[in-house]
Order: sequence, then structure tokens, then C-alpha cells
Amino acid sequence: MLRSIAHIQLRWVIALVLALPLLAQADDQLASWNDGPSRQAIEQFVETVTTEGSKDYVPVAQRIAVFDNDGTLWSEQPMYFQLLFALSEVKRLAPEHPEWKTEQPFKAVLENDQKTLATTGMDGLMKIVGATHTGVSVDAFRENAQRWLATAKHPKNDKPFTEMVFQPMLELLNYLRANGFKTYIVSGGEVEFMRVFAEEVYGIPPEQVIGTTFSTQFQDKDGKYSILREPKLALNDDGPGKPVSIQSIIGRRPILAFGNSDGDLQMLQWTTAGEGKRFAGIVHHTDAKREWAYDRDSHIGRLDKALDAAKANNWTVVDMAKEWKVVYPFELNQP
Amino acid sequence: MLRSIAHIQLRWVIALVLALPLLAQADDQLASWNDGPSRQAIEQFVETVTTEGSKDYVPVAQRIAVFDNDGTLWSEQPMYFQLLFALSEVKRLAPEHPEWKTEQPFKAVLENDQKTLATTGMDGLMKIVGATHTGVSVDAFRENAQRWLATAKHPKNDKPFTEMVFQPMLELLNYLRANGFKTYIVSGGEVEFMRVFAEEVYGIPPEQVIGTTFSTQFQDKDGKYSILREPKLALNDDGPGKPVSIQSIIGRRPILAFGNSDGDLQMLQWTTAGEGKRFAGIVHHTDAKREWAYDRDSHIGRLDKALDAAKANNWTVVDMAKEWKVVYPFELNQP
Repeated sequence: MLRSIAHIQLRWVIALVLALPLLAQADDQLASWNDGPSRQAIEQFVETVTTEGSKDYVPVAQRIAVFDNDGTLWSEQPMYFQLLFALSEVKRLAPEHPEWKTEQPFKAVLENDQKTLATTGMDGLMKIVGATHTGVSVDAFRENAQRWLATAKHPKNDKPFTEMVFQPMLELLNYLRANGFKTYIVSGGEVEFMRVFAEEVYGIPPEQVIGTTFSTQFQDKDGKYSILREPKLALNDDGPGKPVSIQSIIGRRPILAFGNSDGDLQMLQWTTAGEGKRFAGIVHHTDAKREWAYDRDSHIGRLDKALDAAKANNWTVVDMAKEWKVVYPFELNQP
Repeated sequence: MLRSIAHIQLRWVIALVLALPLLAQADDQLASWNDGPSRQAIEQFVETVTTEGSKDYVPVAQRIAVFDNDGTLWSEQPMYFQLLFALSEVKRLAPEHPEWKTEQPFKAVLENDQKTLATTGMDGLMKIVGATHTGVSVDAFRENAQRWLATAKHPKNDKPFTEMVFQPMLELLNYLRANGFKTYIVSGGEVEFMRVFAEEVYGIPPEQVIGTTFSTQFQDKDGKYSILREPKLALNDDGPGKPVSIQSIIGRRPILAFGNSDGDLQMLQWTTAGEGKRFAGIVHHTDAKREWAYDRDSHIGRLDKALDAAKANNWTVVDMAKEWKVVYPFELNQP
């Protein structure tokens, strides 16, 4: 009898020891967030909307959370990563385009002439994006993006771009999903480019990635089908384009939105103007040491009007330097 | 002891009796389908792609199923139900538009002059749809659609339109979802009109409804936000527009598609041209008694090229008259 009790107790002890790491994990799903105001606001919001019987309870089906990508889920300096991809593609495709040797903006790209490139402005940019993102099938484009993402390294820290995602935001995505949220990307980035890595890196499936979209055509060549990308925008998913794409594609208003720049202002406004409890968050790039520090005067990811709106409306502004224990996942493995 | 055994046995008998309806239900999720070739093809396909270890196994994340709506999930005679809504809206809005008394095609609608209405053709149709579907916020439009759906009755059988959905297709949607499929509508119908009833009637949430879409604008009137519908198509979700919208919104190729007309041909082609096991189904309207009988010569839901393609490619063609025990849910309650 005694032996039997001892046996049972031993089993309990073993079970407890085995369970401890799991318990710790469950307890700290936001492990990379300091116990600051942002973490507290997030946890309080999630508890409020998921507590059955509470007046602010939100059914699972309506727990839609939308995230900008550039500057919100991964870095965006010294320029949008997708633009680095486009510049790299110009070089890869140059042998097929001898005319680019003398034609701007391609000449400037091939000669690494940043000064001239800058003078070509939005027109030049659209030519580069058009030449590298369209005129091919969706499948072919995704292969190009995949190849680049698998091999290219960030100019500053020599890491693959898919490792320059924000660890605290990965934890936030998981935490929200564990609480019944459906997590979406709503980004100015091109939709098929993001779909290449969003599922593996963020756990966000293709059908929950919304982004700037090119027009496409269904092609039937003697029973061989493909979808051809055309050099014409179907959806410019930036600024007021974000609530528009949210409505047309998701069809209901999110209850949580996270951005980092003025391009996210209307998405944050639209989200918080709904009835009931809502959450608006802004990633504030305050960390010149581990990431970058920029806001009101930046050409990339300018945060000015949205920062004023955040203050006026009591939105959550995440001070990256103070509130994040680590920025990137690879810091977790450092001594 | 004996009494105890008897007691246990009685409990078992009671448990079994209580479980019987559940077992029967589990066993016959497709209860309204006769054991014909279509049901067999559906069940065989689902078993094949969901059997782990089988070479044709498809992971849950990739089990995308797409369904046309008009003529596939609900009836579409004597004309698309959404068009009946538009005509009804012209009458409701007429007091605000005195000019319609003399202006075509509105005059013809108000005078129930079908002959003149028909002569106004596609131009007239677009004017009617524009006047009744745009120029209002998304919220206001949805209220209009909701009001009509809650009160209008079908001219033939006096049933609400949301009861004229196909019982066997409702069962198929549930059966697929129970097997890990994500079910989508991909329809020429207008997306917000369908979203008003798709979740309640089909169990398909707004974010899984894809349809013809009007351009919208985000409006900010002194901090009051709305999304305004404009009289301009952003997406014509018919024919080759279907694979286009599937790629741009879902971002991966379905493994099962169901349609009923030539407008679904490209969606069926695109679905079945993917690698691995695929399923293409067509609802063939063969039932003049319980529903309608039409195919190659119909102005609405013409099924001609897609019927040839089905024969050539061995797609599943559902003979409604022979393979469906009931057509509508309300038949289940009849003696």
C-alpha cells in the first residue's frame, strides 16, 4: 500500500517536472516583451474581449487582427526589403535586357549610381518594380522571390531578410491566435512577394495576406493554364487603401490593428471607430542600437500624423528600445 | 451482483439508444444525396485526400474548396435573385427619383414593362445595378440587402430566397468542413450582397466570400469614417475573372471546385490543372418538377462549354433530378 502511494506520488512528480516547461511557456507567451505599458495594454485587451459573459466579449469569428508588414513585423531600413529585391532582380535580368545599359533608371541600378537613381523618383521606381514584378506568371514570380529570399543578405547585419522579423511581434501573433484571433497582414508590400514567406515565418497563410496587388490575366495556351501578372495596379494597399482592402477582402472590421507609419493611419482609424473594445498599436522605431531610430522625418516609414493620432486617441505606442527585450529572433541564441 | 450487471447493461442500452441518432448523422452527412455516381465520386475524393500516408494526401491548410453561388448553392430562376433585389430597390427608391418616371430603364421597371426592360440590354442592367448598389456606404447597402432578404418572397413558390438554397449542397459544405476543408464562395454575385446571408445560411464567413466587387473609397467626414461604394467595378468575378480572384485573394489553388454554368469553366479548369488529386463538380439543372431544367440554351446559367469540358475531362456532373432526394431544406419537413 505504501509502495503504491509512493509510486503514485513519484508519477505525479515526474508528470509535474515534465509539464514545467510547458507551464512556463503558457505563462509567458509574450516573453520578449518587458512588463511595460504596451504589454499590459495588449494583455488587458485580449482578456477583456475573450472573457465570456463580459459586456466586451467578442465571439471568435469576429476576432480579426490586422498587421502592417514593413516596419511592423520586420525591418524596413535602409529601404523596403522588397525594393532591395527589385534592384537585385534588375541585375539578374540585365543580360536579357542589353538596352538597360543606357536606359534610366536601369542604367543607374546597374552602375550602383544611387544619386542618379534617386533623381528618377516615383516614375523610376514604378519602372523598376514593373520590370521585375510583372510580365511573368504568378508561379514564376514566386520562384524569383523565393530564390532571392533564400540567398540574399541584409547589407547591415548580413542576415537573411526573413530573420529580420521582430521576435516580440512573432510572439504577439502566436498569442493572439492562441486566443482565437485570425491574424492578417494588410501591407503596402506586394501580396505574392509576402506570401512566399508569410506562412513559414509568421504562421500567416496566403489567404490571410493582403497587399498591393497587380492586375492579372487568366491565360489558356492550348490547355496550359497560367495567371499572368500585368504592369497595372489592381490595389494600392496603403493609407486609405487599407480600410478599402480590409472591407473588400475580409468583409468585416478588425478589432485589433498594428502599424508603424502614416500609411497605417486610416487602418487604425477604421479599426478603432468600430463599436465595442478596440485596440490600435504602433511600433515606434526608437532603437538606433539594435534596429533603427526614426519617425517624423524619415523618408521610409514616416510616423508623424499617426503618432499625433495615437497621442490624441490613447493608442498604444510601443517603445521598441524600452519595451522589447530582444528585437530579432537570432538575439535569443546569443550569450 | 446480478442486479449490478443488469444495471450496467441497462445503462449501456440507454447510452446506445441515445447515441443512435448521432451515429446515423455521422454516417450520413450526405443524407440528401442518393447513392449515385456523384456522391460516390465526392466521398472517394475526400477519403483519398484526407488519408494520412496516402500518396494523394493533402494537408489541411491546402484543402481549399470553391463554390459558385447562383445555380450552384441556390436557385437562379426565373432570374438571378440579386437582380430581383435590384428591381425591387428601384421601386423602393423611386420617390427620391421623380426623374425615373420618364427615364429608361427605370420607367420600364416602375411600370413592370418587361418587354421594354429587355430591350435596354446590358446598358440598362448596369444602370439599374449602379443606382441600387452604389452611391451608398457599405453599411447602408448591407442594410438594404438584409431588409429585402428578410421580407421578399420568390415569385414561383412564395418562399424567402434564403430558403431556396440546395439542401444537398449545404450537406456537402458541412461534410467538407468536417473533413478539414476551408469552403469559399467564388461567384459573379456582388460580394457584399452575398455576405449578408452566407454566414448564417451556408456557414461561410464574410472573409471566405469572393464575388463581383465595386470600387470603394474610404471617407473621413470630421472623424466619421465610412466606406463609400462607387459605380465602378473593381472585380468582375465571372469566367476568367474567377481564377484571377482566387489567386489574388486566396493565393493558392483550390483542390475542389463546384459550379453550374459556363461562367465557372475557367475556375474548374484552373482547379483541376493543379498537381495531385483534384475534384471538379457541376450541378446540372435537370429537375423541371422540383426546381428548373435548363442547360445549353438558357439565358441564365447557360451550361454548354463547361458541359462539354466535363465530359471530356471526366468531371462529376450532378443530375439533380436523379441524385438529390430533396432540393430545398423545406422539403425535409413535408410529409
